[in-house]
Amino acid sequence: MAGKGEETRNRILNVATELFAAKGFKDVTMSDICERTGLSRGGLYRHYSSTSEIFSEIISDEYSFDERIKNKESAVKILKDTLAYVEDAILEKERSLSLAIYEYANVDDHRDEFLMLEAKAKKRWMTLIRYGIRTGEFNKVKPEAAAEMILYYYQGLRMWSRVVDIGKKAAGNYSRNVMELLTGGR
Amino acid sequence: MAGKGEETRNRILNVATELFAAKGFKDVTMSDICERTGLSRGGLYRHYSSTSEIFSEIISDEYSFDERIKNKESAVKILKDTLAYVEDAILEKERSLSLAIYEYANVDDHRDEFLMLEAKAKKRWMTLIRYGIRTGEFNKVKPEAAAEMILYYYQGLRMWSRVVDIGKKAAGNYSRNVMELLTGGR
Repeated sequence: MAGKGEETRNRILNVATELFAAKGFKDVTMSDICERTGLSRGGLYRHYSSTSEIFSEIISDEYSFDERIKNKESAVKILKDTLAYVEDAILEKERSLSLAIYEYANVDDHRDEFLMLEAKAKKRWMTLIRYGIRTGEFNKVKPEAAAEMILYYYQGLRMWSRVVDIGKKAAGNYSRNVMELLTGGR
Repeated sequence: MAGKGEETRNRILNVATELFAAKGFKDVTMSDICERTGLSRGGLYRHYSSTSEIFSEIISDEYSFDERIKNKESAVKILKDTLAYVEDAILEKERSLSLAIYEYANVDDHRDEFLMLEAKAKKRWMTLIRYGIRTGEFNKVKPEAAAEMILYYYQGLRMWSRVVDIGKKAAGNYSRNVMELLTGGR
């Protein structure tokens, strides 16, 4: 069971995500977060010292395929579960951080942090792709190129979901294209 | 030969593209454009009445596959030529309008204009994909889904090229993935 401190931190991260998605990074202040969470200034600063620290924690949200690969689960099953999750994320446009990420990286010179995050995300996907090729479930694609397609296509959708209306169909087509690239023609 | 008026308009569009790429849409004024082009206020307003009008012309830059399809050129050749052009565009990060497009669409409520542009771009690609399937050069992909992958993957790269360093390799991988999706396994 989550302790009270962890519960508060989750509430802060949740509220902050919505604020960053709505206003970008620059225009969100610690006061905004106090107001929306109902925390006092002291209560908020006990957990985080700046909006940068909060943002950094939100975007570093980690997931990994390692456990499932170790358990020898099917690569196609892992891929399908992940795509179902990603489809939901594409449609949650009120939580799209594209603009905020852009501002955060440029305004505060957090480029190195981003390079690292990008590299990690790419590596994670390359691990799954290599695993699927090894088990014979995936096509013999170039792991790095395929990982980039998966990541940048997602970012393009997330970015545009704020500009035009990206429907369920476009989110479904994302999964279809990734499946086609990795398992098509079999 | 381009007349003097057209030459001036091209210069305005060129300078404005760089300004929008550097500063986004909101923060560019008609005065900035006068200053950078060396035109007087009267000289600029003779051609355009607002930054919206200029931006709208820049993003509506049209190209079409129709002529080449009518001439029965090879679909693979048309695709390869287009991808070479797109690769160059991905690398020109000082001309990436991702942020400006985002601001333009949201700030000035130009969403309908964008919906139309997106629809046109998708249709253009679907025409080429259908043609390639008809000539037997392309895989039997779903034209709409494939067109979306081509467009959103590009947008993701363009957006991120402003945040992290997108190298020649990632631009090359874009072409590789599109080729793989449309002609892979043959």
